[in-house]
Amino acid sequence: MIKSLTSVVTVQSLNSSVLNAQTKIHANAWRFKKTLTILIVLFSSINLFAQKLERVEPMFWFTGMHNPILQLLVHGENIASSSVSLAYPGVKLAKVNKVENPNYLFLDLTIAPSAKAGKFPINFAFNGKNTFTYTYELKNRDKSAGRIQGVTNKDFIYLLMPDRFSNGDKSNDVIQGLTETSLNRDSMYYRHGGDIQGVINHLDYLKDLGVTTVWMTPEVENDMPQASYHGYAVTDHYKIDPRYGTNALYKKYVEIAHAKGLKVIKDIVHNHIGTQHWFYKDLPMKSWLNQWPKYTQTSYRDQTLMDVHASAADRKQMLDGWFVPSMPDLNQRNPYVQNYLTQNHIWWIEYAGIDGLRLDTYGYNDPVYMADWALKVQAEFPHLSVFGETLVTAVANQAFFTGGNTVNRGFDTHLQGITDATLKDAIYEGINGKNGWVDGINRLYATLAHDFLYKNPNTNCIFLDNHDLSRFYSMVGEDFDKYKMGMSILLTMRGIPQMYYGTEILMKNFSNPDGLIRSDFPGGWEGDKKDKFIADGRTNKENEAFNFVKTLANFRKNSPALQTGKLMQFVPQDDIYVYFRYNVEPKGTVMVIVNNTDKEKTLNTDRFAERTAGITTAKNVITDENIEFKNIKVPAKTTLVLELR
Amino acid sequence: MIKSLTSVVTVQSLNSSVLNAQTKIHANAWRFKKTLTILIVLFSSINLFAQKLERVEPMFWFTGMHNPILQLLVHGENIASSSVSLAYPGVKLAKVNKVENPNYLFLDLTIAPSAKAGKFPINFAFNGKNTFTYTYELKNRDKSAGRIQGVTNKDFIYLLMPDRFSNGDKSNDVIQGLTETSLNRDSMYYRHGGDIQGVINHLDYLKDLGVTTVWMTPEVENDMPQASYHGYAVTDHYKIDPRYGTNALYKKYVEIAHAKGLKVIKDIVHNHIGTQHWFYKDLPMKSWLNQWPKYTQTSYRDQTLMDVHASAADRKQMLDGWFVPSMPDLNQRNPYVQNYLTQNHIWWIEYAGIDGLRLDTYGYNDPVYMADWALKVQAEFPHLSVFGETLVTAVANQAFFTGGNTVNRGFDTHLQGITDATLKDAIYEGINGKNGWVDGINRLYATLAHDFLYKNPNTNCIFLDNHDLSRFYSMVGEDFDKYKMGMSILLTMRGIPQMYYGTEILMKNFSNPDGLIRSDFPGGWEGDKKDKFIADGRTNKENEAFNFVKTLANFRKNSPALQTGKLMQFVPQDDIYVYFRYNVEPKGTVMVIVNNTDKEKTLNTDRFAERTAGITTAKNVITDENIEFKNIKVPAKTTLVLELR
Repeated sequence: MIKSLTSVVTVQSLNSSVLNAQTKIHANAWRFKKTLTILIVLFSSINLFAQKLERVEPMFWFTGMHNPILQLLVHGENIASSSVSLAYPGVKLAKVNKVENPNYLFLDLTIAPSAKAGKFPINFAFNGKNTFTYTYELKNRDKSAGRIQGVTNKDFIYLLMPDRFSNGDKSNDVIQGLTETSLNRDSMYYRHGGDIQGVINHLDYLKDLGVTTVWMTPEVENDMPQASYHGYAVTDHYKIDPRYGTNALYKKYVEIAHAKGLKVIKDIVHNHIGTQHWFYKDLPMKSWLNQWPKYTQTSYRDQTLMDVHASAADRKQMLDGWFVPSMPDLNQRNPYVQNYLTQNHIWWIEYAGIDGLRLDTYGYNDPVYMADWALKVQAEFPHLSVFGETLVTAVANQAFFTGGNTVNRGFDTHLQGITDATLKDAIYEGINGKNGWVDGINRLYATLAHDFLYKNPNTNCIFLDNHDLSRFYSMVGEDFDKYKMGMSILLTMRGIPQMYYGTEILMKNFSNPDGLIRSDFPGGWEGDKKDKFIADGRTNKENEAFNFVKTLANFRKNSPALQTGKLMQFVPQDDIYVYFRYNVEPKGTVMVIVNNTDKEKTLNTDRFAERTAGITTAKNVITDENIEFKNIKVPAKTTLVLELR
Repeated sequence: MIKSLTSVVTVQSLNSSVLNAQTKIHANAWRFKKTLTILIVLFSSINLFAQKLERVEPMFWFTGMHNPILQLLVHGENIASSSVSLAYPGVKLAKVNKVENPNYLFLDLTIAPSAKAGKFPINFAFNGKNTFTYTYELKNRDKSAGRIQGVTNKDFIYLLMPDRFSNGDKSNDVIQGLTETSLNRDSMYYRHGGDIQGVINHLDYLKDLGVTTVWMTPEVENDMPQASYHGYAVTDHYKIDPRYGTNALYKKYVEIAHAKGLKVIKDIVHNHIGTQHWFYKDLPMKSWLNQWPKYTQTSYRDQTLMDVHASAADRKQMLDGWFVPSMPDLNQRNPYVQNYLTQNHIWWIEYAGIDGLRLDTYGYNDPVYMADWALKVQAEFPHLSVFGETLVTAVANQAFFTGGNTVNRGFDTHLQGITDATLKDAIYEGINGKNGWVDGINRLYATLAHDFLYKNPNTNCIFLDNHDLSRFYSMVGEDFDKYKMGMSILLTMRGIPQMYYGTEILMKNFSNPDGLIRSDFPGGWEGDKKDKFIADGRTNKENEAFNFVKTLANFRKNSPALQTGKLMQFVPQDDIYVYFRYNVEPKGTVMVIVNNTDKEKTLNTDRFAERTAGITTAKNVITDENIEFKNIKVPAKTTLVLELR
């Protein structure tokens, strides 16, 4: 009976096509509830016992956390019929929560500051006869220096997809028992075999390039039948995908990175899971997900959240609609879901010592929960950096999501930063566009002038492309002058610059239709014809690009102006856009001159006196040449980066 | 000697070309100061006396004002050498201010609440020998009902240029003694003879059309040699241009309008004057204007004011640069200028009983002064409405200028409303554009979704064109379907709708290059071949347009939803954009459905349940037909306006 009861719950996702999944959940949940009631009535006097204790999550926890409360999710057949007990100094089982599905218990523990690291049993007894025991562990928090450092304007982020960067461990390319076992480097939609060891193997390459921070798309298990490599359809929140490695290897990766002076960002997904998530197959309760009478997709319209004229229906669809059919939408108004997600993220940060988080699909999450999440995470890790993905089309829309902004009707998201998509669009317009009152460099100028909407635009993650967008080099028509213009802006602008892997070697392609923007990094696989991780494997032009990025990125590391400086920009004149980054103590000024026209220009520097008083010479950061600081010649299609002396 | 001294001061603008004026002012002011010092030393014991008392401004004032302080500008040759005295109960001469130019005095008066209306002499005595007397008058404030009513979302503003609307008094077409005496209706840049009497003559026409409020471009004197008709190059702040009429006629015009239930907006200019302004010819002091070493034009870049990265130099150029060479830029940081302007505006409002003000080139004015101005004006006239011209390109930039917004770093402009140029652009995109993620109706939707940046978007003046822009009918390619779409949106949207004269009869033309957007209203002049003020003079299509506007405008007058209702908009779906205006008490709902495609659409109304629960029938406001409220057919290129029952 128990098996058949379980099958009622689990059949919903196993046997149904994805598009019909929600309808079935709804119908099944209703049937399940009725069946359950009947079963409870029928079998209330019969001894039930769990056949297996499937999971306790978080699997272990830490002493000395700011929040003394921990909620354990326990999953096992009919575990709800057990009596739970534990005894450990400083740890109290405050409450045992039963939910709709008897295969779950949620245990509220309080952990006193006095609790010491150690192991203790949690007992699950079934009418005093059978007992399961889970040995829980409290570990000491790791207070070592160099962990959880935060990622700031000083850094330079390298974004990569672990399946596509380098295959450092062929033994994990195919894992039997997972849903997808095909390895096919000829298709963009199959696994290619890249992994964490591959990234570890190339940390020196990244360091040499001038990168300071690595951001991988999600490394946790995505046991999905198709396109599992992308990582955003999580099927196990507590487990690194075995094709990438193990939890221990991930922790080691962070440690090695830190030892090399590099930082690590983890990419996490609050909003949704994959349809192959273990708990989707046996939902704790109907309200674990945002359920709809029939499949309902999000509108992807962030406006519904900020629009004072929005309808409740539109807002609900944006927040509760599913991102895609294969990614069920978590109900973040459910306190059990809230605890589950927040604890998971805190667990990973403390476990691995992560420096920053990137939050996927930020605007699709419940805003109240996300603000609470941010406070809870910041309370545990004051130095951690967090930025949310906001792929929106205006600065106001981005600013709406940022912490401390003044436009969100008194609501503080407590989100430190966002992905600055509108600046990206504006940089493209500044490079590719024809100058006009609101076009070309004037759009770039005007977009940055909207920074008054932020509390602090310096925490924005700025970028030219990423795993969802056409590659930068293609977007500038493979024009190397424009490439250099864009990279110069990216690496000198306010905000935290992020580059997508391979941009340094001129990797190209458009996001549609064939997914080639996620191509393998040449040389990342044994036997690759070219190894572009080394100079000899790169063409002259690729080396020129690599060295261009390397020069700027390494200059950044020692430039007070770029590390911590303010921005000052001037109204474009004569088709020339000029901005400064400047710092008072330690003193430093970098002047950036953008000429996006086809003509050489001569720039009289008189109007910049506020930033250039007393300056007589300037160093071209790329060429290392010194020039006289007066009537500066700016070649066609060039972003000059000058260090003022 | 005195004459020659005066000529030093006045030669600067009389004998110089406009472009060189500023340089000369600078040089002359310096020479003037030196000469003056020498003269004072030489002639200190000689009796000097004013040859003529040119002006005292304001010419009269009012009892019972909120602000007890009044500063009189007195202009007369060498008036500074006089002793000033006055005696009137409740009126005290608090201070006599001398300034650089001895032809000016600024008298600080305090007027006690107890002061009664009446006349009293102000005496200017020269060493006790010669005395000039100016008979000053305090008039009672006019507390009659129906004056200074404010202009709200309930209203419908008709903007016209008085020189181009109707010539009601041929006797004032050419005024001898003014600089421009040519009358030439064949050129857009000369005077055409329209006047205030012409507007008075057609108030019934406007009322019939459904207009509630008339806004004329500035009526005060513009005694300029060229293009004096436009009105923004003021040469006398206290005098209606004699080609338009007299101060008394203007006051009468407001009274007649009020008697007909119409309101009046006055268009005022803080930022600049005309080079033929009387005080420009004999500046009170150098700092009366924003002076530059050589002619410097504003950058027209509002961004410099809000940009946290802006340079001080850019900000100064925006604010203090001249709008055009023929319009000197007033220095609004000068307290004498501040008092002069503020009192002038208060004087006109109280004198004529004006309902609202439109502030020209709002963003070019000194922000601190403008905020102070707003408070002072509101203190005198709590019901007055004020909106500022903000011809900018993003909602954030507009919102920055509005009172009570949260984005302006704690600075409150106290400006009630702005001219909503970004909504205008978005409406065009919604009508003319091809629908895409951020284009077509989606831009209209997204622009309105930015209303969260305002304290109150309902005070925005919304429009499709004006005297500076290409006419609406031309901008939609003279497509009558699109014309109706746009007018339907204009007259049902949140904000205060404003229509430019002649739009109701399909007047057309582009703003460049020939100024034909300022063509005469046909029938406004005796002998015009067509009189489009009457149905018989209009073509069938023009009558259709007229009646379309009239129907909507008159429907507005009795629709609680459009008069005071809120806005709710829905995410566009299937190329259809839907919004509602709704009011709870008195109850009323108007549904607006925009189909900008070339295909008829059928709209299922289920998703609008929040606003349509219980609705079974709807009235098409234009056709007066009742339709079943379910699966509504929306013709191609149509904005359906439905009153829900």
